[in-house]
Amino acid sequence: MGALPAEPWCIREQALDPARAFLHETLFALGNGYIGMRGTHEDFGTVADGTLEGTYLNGFYENEPIHYPENAYGLARTNEFMLNVPNAKRVALFVEGEAFDPAAGRMLAYERVLDVRTGVLERRIDWESASGKQVRIVSRRLVSFARKHVAAVEYAVTALNFSGQVRIESFVDSAVTNLLAGDDPRVGSAVTGPSLEVVQRDVDDAQVLVLQRTRNSGFLLATATHTTVVGGAFVERRGEGQAFEAQLAQGATVTLCKVIAYVSSRDVAEDDVASHALNELKHASSAMFAALAAEQSAYLADFWRQADVEIVGDDALQQGVRFNQYHLLQSAGRDGKTNIAAKGVTGEGYEGHYFWDTEIYIFPFLLFTKPEIARALLQYRYHGLPKARERARAMSHEQGALYPWRTIAGEECSAYFPAGTAQYHINADVAYSVRLYLEATGDFDFIAQYGAEIVLETARIWLGIGSYDMQGRFCLNAVTGPDEYTAIVNNNYYTNAMARMHMRFAVQVAERLRAERPADYARVAAAIDLRGDELAALTAACDSMRLPYDDTLGIHAQDDSFLSKKPWDFANTPKDKYPLLLHFHPLVIYRHQVCKQADVVLALLLLSDEFTLDDKKRDFDFYERVTTHDSSLSSCIFSIIAAEVGYRDKAYEYFMETARLDLDNTHANTEYGVHTAAMAGTWLGVAYGFAGMRLSNGTLRFAPTLPAQWQRYRFKVHVRGALLDVVVDAHGAMYTLAEGDELAFTHHGREVKLSKTQPAQRMGDAA
Amino acid sequence: MGALPAEPWCIREQALDPARAFLHETLFALGNGYIGMRGTHEDFGTVADGTLEGTYLNGFYENEPIHYPENAYGLARTNEFMLNVPNAKRVALFVEGEAFDPAAGRMLAYERVLDVRTGVLERRIDWESASGKQVRIVSRRLVSFARKHVAAVEYAVTALNFSGQVRIESFVDSAVTNLLAGDDPRVGSAVTGPSLEVVQRDVDDAQVLVLQRTRNSGFLLATATHTTVVGGAFVERRGEGQAFEAQLAQGATVTLCKVIAYVSSRDVAEDDVASHALNELKHASSAMFAALAAEQSAYLADFWRQADVEIVGDDALQQGVRFNQYHLLQSAGRDGKTNIAAKGVTGEGYEGHYFWDTEIYIFPFLLFTKPEIARALLQYRYHGLPKARERARAMSHEQGALYPWRTIAGEECSAYFPAGTAQYHINADVAYSVRLYLEATGDFDFIAQYGAEIVLETARIWLGIGSYDMQGRFCLNAVTGPDEYTAIVNNNYYTNAMARMHMRFAVQVAERLRAERPADYARVAAAIDLRGDELAALTAACDSMRLPYDDTLGIHAQDDSFLSKKPWDFANTPKDKYPLLLHFHPLVIYRHQVCKQADVVLALLLLSDEFTLDDKKRDFDFYERVTTHDSSLSSCIFSIIAAEVGYRDKAYEYFMETARLDLDNTHANTEYGVHTAAMAGTWLGVAYGFAGMRLSNGTLRFAPTLPAQWQRYRFKVHVRGALLDVVVDAHGAMYTLAEGDELAFTHHGREVKLSKTQPAQRMGDAA
Repeated sequence: MGALPAEPWCIREQALDPARAFLHETLFALGNGYIGMRGTHEDFGTVADGTLEGTYLNGFYENEPIHYPENAYGLARTNEFMLNVPNAKRVALFVEGEAFDPAAGRMLAYERVLDVRTGVLERRIDWESASGKQVRIVSRRLVSFARKHVAAVEYAVTALNFSGQVRIESFVDSAVTNLLAGDDPRVGSAVTGPSLEVVQRDVDDAQVLVLQRTRNSGFLLATATHTTVVGGAFVERRGEGQAFEAQLAQGATVTLCKVIAYVSSRDVAEDDVASHALNELKHASSAMFAALAAEQSAYLADFWRQADVEIVGDDALQQGVRFNQYHLLQSAGRDGKTNIAAKGVTGEGYEGHYFWDTEIYIFPFLLFTKPEIARALLQYRYHGLPKARERARAMSHEQGALYPWRTIAGEECSAYFPAGTAQYHINADVAYSVRLYLEATGDFDFIAQYGAEIVLETARIWLGIGSYDMQGRFCLNAVTGPDEYTAIVNNNYYTNAMARMHMRFAVQVAERLRAERPADYARVAAAIDLRGDELAALTAACDSMRLPYDDTLGIHAQDDSFLSKKPWDFANTPKDKYPLLLHFHPLVIYRHQVCKQADVVLALLLLSDEFTLDDKKRDFDFYERVTTHDSSLSSCIFSIIAAEVGYRDKAYEYFMETARLDLDNTHANTEYGVHTAAMAGTWLGVAYGFAGMRLSNGTLRFAPTLPAQWQRYRFKVHVRGALLDVVVDAHGAMYTLAEGDELAFTHHGREVKLSKTQPAQRMGDAA
Repeated sequence: MGALPAEPWCIREQALDPARAFLHETLFALGNGYIGMRGTHEDFGTVADGTLEGTYLNGFYENEPIHYPENAYGLARTNEFMLNVPNAKRVALFVEGEAFDPAAGRMLAYERVLDVRTGVLERRIDWESASGKQVRIVSRRLVSFARKHVAAVEYAVTALNFSGQVRIESFVDSAVTNLLAGDDPRVGSAVTGPSLEVVQRDVDDAQVLVLQRTRNSGFLLATATHTTVVGGAFVERRGEGQAFEAQLAQGATVTLCKVIAYVSSRDVAEDDVASHALNELKHASSAMFAALAAEQSAYLADFWRQADVEIVGDDALQQGVRFNQYHLLQSAGRDGKTNIAAKGVTGEGYEGHYFWDTEIYIFPFLLFTKPEIARALLQYRYHGLPKARERARAMSHEQGALYPWRTIAGEECSAYFPAGTAQYHINADVAYSVRLYLEATGDFDFIAQYGAEIVLETARIWLGIGSYDMQGRFCLNAVTGPDEYTAIVNNNYYTNAMARMHMRFAVQVAERLRAERPADYARVAAAIDLRGDELAALTAACDSMRLPYDDTLGIHAQDDSFLSKKPWDFANTPKDKYPLLLHFHPLVIYRHQVCKQADVVLALLLLSDEFTLDDKKRDFDFYERVTTHDSSLSSCIFSIIAAEVGYRDKAYEYFMETARLDLDNTHANTEYGVHTAAMAGTWLGVAYGFAGMRLSNGTLRFAPTLPAQWQRYRFKVHVRGALLDVVVDAHGAMYTLAEGDELAFTHHGREVKLSKTQPAQRMGDAA
């Protein structure tokens, strides 16, 4: 029992260990950016208390009023939270009348494997009933990448040492509830009781259709299944499902195939919800699992072709890297209406909310490996503009749009504003992703259609927040930066520097649009009522932006007062007092010089051009000493900057913390869902960190190094219509243009130009 | 209809005006520091919707867990809130079977008067029933100052134009609930449904006893009444009461006398609650109302002898001043276990919580006019030390005690810590009141017994919060000062200056105790485990205390960053956007240079010796421009400093805002209870403001001025065992030693010494 063996493409559970059941439900979760199914078992409840049967639909949410024990004007009023939807994968097995139950009888063999090349979760069990009958159960499950609304289960039972009756019941469990929140602010919503009310329930000999409505958000959800059996026959309807029976000769097998569809009124008109769901099952048959599995493999082959990161020399790391990439693919909404929850679709942590994690951590990974998803994520933000405008008005901004700190459908859902709404940098984070999109794709059509409006509307907020101090510096006061261990501070370095980037980019976009596409400019300017003097005001603010710097220490100050605070007494803080937020009142944390996560250090990465290497080194040295990395968003950034400033050991150590954060459950809360931002941080750690990739101002750069622990690594980058294959080994780097016509970049400052005629080039100097 | 006429000793309601009913319920409330009865009518429900039938017992509370939509470590966990207790004053009147109801029939005459010399609320009504029968109803009510647990109602009905049957029912209404909180954070608790469960109910021909238990806090409450009738007779028991009937000849009167007792297990042992309540009624008879009223008048004569402020030349002001003093007397807990709620016992605003309002605003008034109550208030804080120690531990302080920002029985009940727990100055505020007590009374016995432990335990917290910055200045970071329009700032001037005062006083007390009463010192030091080096550490912190000052402006900065914030755009803020807290998100307010209330300006008063007059003038000029006075605690302080710096018109205007704040309902929320701190501010405005009184470092000073609008004013001061009578008129001041052997003080800097041989002295120079 215990940990998962290191394998490059799989995670493999070799025993049913109650102590690890809750964790493994998350790790073995399947998803397709829409449907998410935790890795619970089809045919029995959990083997341990306190675990979580969960099925989720990205962007399908309930809402409820937020009640504050002490109210204030403008606080977030409505929470949106991801719902636990019916568990449609359920089956129950009876062997000659004896119910299959791992707790009864005897487990003769057990294995469960998730292979990220097939996207199928396969479990193999040999089990002996109390009366001695042995069966082999092979169950396979997938959530289809090719079909947003579809999942499927194949369940095969073989009589090993007897001939007799096997009964398999297939059903939907629609009486599901959400997890209760405890004292940990990082866990789920506090909703109690079923959130879905059944409005229709149809069961025939093969199909189930359950129609349910959410109580407050008013959405309609169809859960439909189509179940067939080979080697047995339908015998009766039972509740929300069917029972099948087979008379098996010893050695014979009965195989059930259940195809599942979830469709809601978030995607189709109310009246079409049921028919749309049933339509997904139209061709369902006993052969359909195989067909879906074939599609799944093809989809993943294409994904890995473009996205695979290969690490030679460390199997555990290799496993972590691929596992993380795979889970990101499972997590990312891709329909322009959904985004990526902090825990993907694997658990109820953070209530299914979307944060800046998407733009700053996950977006670059997708942009460079799966750009069509990245584009859809920007469209999500575009569609969020009306709500963001409303929020800006509530925050007394007469113009512009302020994105919510946490949300599903666009409502500000952060109920603790000092570490929520106060993180105004969300606006700059979104603008950063638009800018990166333009850099990586050159797709100015998209900017004209969507990006310009996003960037300009959100840039205006800085003028609303900001003010010039007596020295004429443009200041952003009473904000919270990425580091949530300080709150409501003045001139947070990250916020101010990102706001400057944002406003400059907004002006560039506006000017380019006006010059190149005057009709688009006129349309956007009219839509947002852009005044003639606003661009000049944005530029003026940029030119005077206050960026705190401490001359004595030679470092960028996290904010105006951070450096004058009392250093945290790390020497007398025992390990069990971390994360600090679970052991100290916010005021205690706020008054100390201590960081939860990268803040200035994150600016060193995102605004890399604005710093010298010496700057980066001094900042890294200082902030490393005061950072707890209590946030899972921290280590990957420290790894990248460590690599850049030449701290090779630290770069590797921080990278290791990121790459297996969920597999090794180092933050001790993966039970509630994977950490998608940290997972993306792994890819960033390879590309931005070890390979030194940067893309800004039209220049793509690499400065690859090879960690001493590895023999070789390889990754792909989609950029400007090309697919670049990068292999780094002890001798240097091999760059290959796998797709596209040409690509220019630098390698440790030297120019490299690949084209169809010279598609590959080896460069030395991988130090 | 409309406002109350200006009368020096009374408030008089001349009509039953639905539009003013809710407000008048507060203004006509009666209390004795324990029982509070809103000015609702005995014999009919309210004439307007949305008003509040309320009876309260100071310090009798329910508690409930506080639920946060987003949780954090160390947040206040349990709310304590004042309960609405049974309404025992209820009667119902039937005239020949027709129920008395102001909405039916015809009101021929109406008047209600609260005379603050008698402490009796008297209402006179002539009413004609639908069938034309006319009655005169004279009801009188009191809450006994002499008897903590006792109230009484006298209800007399005269047949004016008929002979016939009059029926009076007397009962207790025990099915009461608390008001619901709306969006206004200044209103009451959110508890729903009855909080009191009836455990016993005994009714006989004269008495009612209802025993109830609170659901969570587990207290037992007895509500008992004894009712007799003169001119009629008992006829039947009805529910929680009795019915009496009289056959009246035209012109004859029936008079009901109901004596009421409330006793809870907060005061006596569980088993004694019922008997104690019944014992309060032991001598109840139809004559008892008159006896209680006589006691009441005697008590008040004594109070006014010591406390009366006389203002000649402005009746409305005179009325406001006496009304405020009277309500303070009604509000102040005086048993050492209770304190003064923000709204006294007149309403559910702020849930009956005690704040710093007591120590900084109300305590000085009581100390100088009713010192035995002031002493009891300090004992309350002494008894709160164990809870304050617990709270300090929760806030990660290994030693010391941290008082709750708002509480009833000692639990921190502030559910919004940025404007709650972050107001660490509460510790200094309590220490200030101990220091003032010692200055005013010289009672070092009390300091040895109680005060030293309070002052030393609370002083320690500053060392826990504070730290030395790189320049060696002792800083207090991440705190909130009195001004709640900034929060979580560094080096709030008020906090730092008051902390210095506090620590210095703590060291003085410890050293005096050690020198003069080594046994007491040893006892206290052992009780709190005082280390030898702690006094030196306190002194060092005082000597290096950071006190922000801006050289350019020549003013004390409210905190490190206040002066660099954007000025609030007052010119474009319409009147209906005040108070700002109800119209702007906290972050919007926090990032601006805007004050809700006196902060630095309050320090100018409390630490008067530490500032030059020029300092005070510059600070006043600056902070006046940025202060909204959205808090009722503000104007009185501005009045006092305006008087000191010679702004006579402003002093008068601010004083006017304070003196009739509740009578004129200028903050538009007196409906939910009186503003006790502002009421005390009126007395401070006279004594500290116009009369320029200061008491510090052993010196009592006066610097009286006479507002141009007045002919004369007079007030009393209890100090060092003496009672000083001060009369100020256009020619100067007359000081008379009304009690005591001698008293020395200064008048505009000149020394005055009164004694038995020279008990009075006239001084010129009242400018």
